[in-house]
Amino acid sequence: MKQAIFLIQCQDRKGLLSEITTFFYSQGFNILHCQQYTDIFENKYFMRIKLDMTDVVTTRKKLESDFDEFSRPYNLNWEAYYSDCVQKIAVLVSKTSHCLYDLLVHRNEGDLHCEIPLIISNHPDLEYVADKFRVPFYCFSIDKENKTGQEELVRDLLERHHIDLVVLARYMQVLSTDFIQHYPGRIINIHHAFLPGFKGGDPYRRAWERGVKMIGATAHYATADLDEGPIIEQDVERITHEDDPDELKRIGKDIERRVLTRAVKAHLEHRIINSGCRTIVFSK
Amino acid sequence: MKQAIFLIQCQDRKGLLSEITTFFYSQGFNILHCQQYTDIFENKYFMRIKLDMTDVVTTRKKLESDFDEFSRPYNLNWEAYYSDCVQKIAVLVSKTSHCLYDLLVHRNEGDLHCEIPLIISNHPDLEYVADKFRVPFYCFSIDKENKTGQEELVRDLLERHHIDLVVLARYMQVLSTDFIQHYPGRIINIHHAFLPGFKGGDPYRRAWERGVKMIGATAHYATADLDEGPIIEQDVERITHEDDPDELKRIGKDIERRVLTRAVKAHLEHRIINSGCRTIVFSK
Amino acid sequence: MKQAIFLIQCQDRKGLLSEITTFFYSQGFNILHCQQYTDIFENKYFMRIKLDMTDVVTTRKKLESDFDEFSRPYNLNWEAYYSDCVQKIAVLVSKTSHCLYDLLVHRNEGDLHCEIPLIISNHPDLEYVADKFRVPFYCFSIDKENKTGQEELVRDLLERHHIDLVVLARYMQVLSTDFIQHYPGRIINIHHAFLPGFKGGDPYRRAWERGVKMIGATAHYATADLDEGPIIEQDVERITHEDDPDELKRIGKDIERRVLTRAVKAHLEHRIINSGCRTIVFSK
Amino acid sequence: MKQAIFLIQCQDRKGLLSEITTFFYSQGFNILHCQQYTDIFENKYFMRIKLDMTDVVTTRKKLESDFDEFSRPYNLNWEAYYSDCVQKIAVLVSKTSHCLYDLLVHRNEGDLHCEIPLIISNHPDLEYVADKFRVPFYCFSIDKENKTGQEELVRDLLERHHIDLVVLARYMQVLSTDFIQHYPGRIINIHHAFLPGFKGGDPYRRAWERGVKMIGATAHYATADLDEGPIIEQDVERITHEDDPDELKRIGKDIERRVLTRAVKAHLEHRIINSGCRTIVFSK
Repeated sequence: MKQAIFLIQCQDRKGLLSEITTFFYSQGFNILHCQQYTDIFENKYFMRIKLDMTDVVTTRKKLESDFDEFSRPYNLNWEAYYSDCVQKIAVLVSKTSHCLYDLLVHRNEGDLHCEIPLIISNHPDLEYVADKFRVPFYCFSIDKENKTGQEELVRDLLERHHIDLVVLARYMQVLSTDFIQHYPGRIINIHHAFLPGFKGGDPYRRAWERGVKMIGATAHYATADLDEGPIIEQDVERITHEDDPDELKRIGKDIERRVLTRAVKAHLEHRIINSGCRTIVFSK
Repeated sequence: MKQAIFLIQCQDRKGLLSEITTFFYSQGFNILHCQQYTDIFENKYFMRIKLDMTDVVTTRKKLESDFDEFSRPYNLNWEAYYSDCVQKIAVLVSKTSHCLYDLLVHRNEGDLHCEIPLIISNHPDLEYVADKFRVPFYCFSIDKENKTGQEELVRDLLERHHIDLVVLARYMQVLSTDFIQHYPGRIINIHHAFLPGFKGGDPYRRAWERGVKMIGATAHYATADLDEGPIIEQDVERITHEDDPDELKRIGKDIERRVLTRAVKAHLEHRIINSGCRTIVFSK
Repeated sequence: MKQAIFLIQCQDRKGLLSEITTFFYSQGFNILHCQQYTDIFENKYFMRIKLDMTDVVTTRKKLESDFDEFSRPYNLNWEAYYSDCVQKIAVLVSKTSHCLYDLLVHRNEGDLHCEIPLIISNHPDLEYVADKFRVPFYCFSIDKENKTGQEELVRDLLERHHIDLVVLARYMQVLSTDFIQHYPGRIINIHHAFLPGFKGGDPYRRAWERGVKMIGATAHYATADLDEGPIIEQDVERITHEDDPDELKRIGKDIERRVLTRAVKAHLEHRIINSGCRTIVFSK
Repeated sequence: MKQAIFLIQCQDRKGLLSEITTFFYSQGFNILHCQQYTDIFENKYFMRIKLDMTDVVTTRKKLESDFDEFSRPYNLNWEAYYSDCVQKIAVLVSKTSHCLYDLLVHRNEGDLHCEIPLIISNHPDLEYVADKFRVPFYCFSIDKENKTGQEELVRDLLERHHIDLVVLARYMQVLSTDFIQHYPGRIINIHHAFLPGFKGGDPYRRAWERGVKMIGATAHYATADLDEGPIIEQDVERITHEDDPDELKRIGKDIERRVLTRAVKAHLEHRIINSGCRTIVFSK
């Protein structure tokens, strides 16, 4: 079944739900799902609406231009997505394979509706994983001198492949602000700690030293300010004093992989709206 | 802020969301929250809609009769609730106090918006708990002979106090079918196991014997068929081989209390719609 | 059944387990439970050993002096506890009652093996809770002027009642370093965040602003350095964008109460050994 | 570091811990870890002891024969394992790949210390997964006629490869009692429900129909009585009314894979002792 999803945000006012749903109804759409959220502190309104496109005689262009006209008096900020557009993901990795595997496996099993046309790394180590799943692998080794130039090459590659979403699956390089701003809300990073705890490097060792009783992982959109981007998903697992830093790393791998995969899934299903440093993540 | 909540169910058809929200909007209501669910297997539509009643010049009677008229062509099955109606709960207990305490404490702390005008038991043991919280306590001891008569007295008491919800907080008596059918969807029971596992008696011992690695509890609406009522809430906790049946009982107490309190809270907030043996539980 | 529990720590060396258990066995004790942990980074050894004291003809004094003599060559650091010594807890509170209730209820239900001879507050608000459970309530209101003097009075009270453990159940006053050092490893605090995230004040609002997807609570021993004490127990709960700061506070209350009660329980059962800023918490 | 692990069970009696640890100490071993459990209902004693074998001048044969002699008066039931013996796993699958992937990936990442010399299936579908990881794939299609013969061939294959553990990773064939008894405590199955709930077929649909609020998975040793074998590991995930049977299946896949992998890991690390229909699973 072909579906369209509209993500809408605007200033809150009375009647929005009625008027927006009536617009779609009057155009002959069956509304499959409609979720709203009102941020009463910022007086903002958010909506995700899923439409059944089967049996509807219109073009996307027409639908969007009609909705645009309708939305103008309300000053709606909106985007439309269509279920038959398969999004393209580039996965950036360094040396650890667990998150990459989880993305590839879930894609292969049909649980992530996307294409992964390329994997990019600053190390050659994971080429064998890419090979297993027959995904082209590009290696751009990075040092102080060539960093800017190599990033340029990565960007070219992403553009040439029409990449919709960049996933940093334990990519151990800081991206330039310029790069990040080029993909607003379209770069997802996994941090191997329960933010805002243990920002920065070596979180498992620091968790062990601090003696916490649970460790976690955080998937967030990348922003210029590292580890401060809008959080999409977090999870934790209970640990004990017996778990040394290596064991925390091992336990953490399973948390990281599921947190990242869930975040990517939510993004691919157009269930996320960004609002400042917070995310609205609608349930499926 | 005064609010009204409508719980609606009907056969699914196109346009319901638009038409229902337009009805309320055209009457001048601000819709605070609107949640829907479509059961595609049974082709049924469910909605919970929360309205801001401040600044609205109408009576409940008028609102309900207007909505009734509006709803007739759609064959809606609906109920309206108002946030300033404080519901009355009767708690039925036997000898264990943990669930009773949790309900009383959450009520006292303002986390359960209700009155508890009476506690009923078939044993005198928990009178001291009722006394602490200054709630009248009624004891109807039950044996084979007097069961029907005593139940009659309980029902009289419930009716005289205009009880909206009966909570079986580890009440170790089977209620008659007649009693249960008198309170459809208005009796919540806590079962000390993760249904459908370990129906019936002594679930903690049986869980120990079976060697499960997690135990749980289940809050459900009471129906004539014991342990088969619509489930509202469940939770579990991890156990190990070291936990003997007594320890399971102790761990289980904490699961039972939070599961029952959450279920009662969801009911009090009018977040539950029953559909056969399944419940639709809307998030707050 | 009367039991003794020895908590032991020392430098790691070969043969400790054999020699210590043989000591107790040769004295005629049945070892009910024996748990060890070796910190290979600090080369330290930790042991908890539980002995059956029934049928043993010795005095505690004799047992302890024999063990002391035995332990000297190994340079053991140890403490002995006896199951028939009921510990005395003082609960310090301010204005919120949820943790206090949870401690009192669990004590009343027999799940916390202790006495609570007094509740101390800097506000009169919770006297009614103390009254319900017939626990003496002392109020020492605190301002800039009288802080040192009032703390003095609290300390007098704790000493006069032979208090074993001080529980800060959302006590909103910073204790003096002097006070804290007087009770090393005997003051448990609950912080309403998942440390090391959101140290300091107003963590729920800050959690909301940061947009985290889970909130938590942390029970730890109080040390001079606030929010840096050894962590005993943590737990979290999943939240969504719909949960505003007040809702986080409400969800948090249930996390705080269970985390604090579990930590106090572990302490009362002599399952905790402190090692720098980490805790060894043996499972029961 | 080379290590030996002894798993011991016997009737409980005083002095066992002291005498067993003294045996190993007197032989010059450093005990790295020692865990015990006493089942007071059956009066049985269980122990797992991990020894450092570096610097020890003895043979395994000598160690085992010495321990055998030592153990005779205590009537110990014991097994010895060595960390440098890499166990061999055969994975049996049908058509769904998620559990298979998870085992292969965890093995590849070094989180499962084992070899997987072959994958066996009754369908050709998953050959491509085996190929990716360069594991030989054998397909024995099964119908009513050939079932016994095909099972014979599977057994031959297992024996020729000196398989230590058979993992049924969603293998949709019932094994014969004869087969199962040939591998006592050495066949692990994953059931896609939280046992004892939803034994038998199609558990996700039945979970949906029953309206449970959490679904789970169970890894257990296979016994002649299906779904009744000793449980090793279970886990659950929260669901809502919105999750239809297909969605439950998808959520369930992630539960199944982690439950099975954890169970296999516990087995490979010799942390499990079977006792009737219960398992003792020691923490690492």
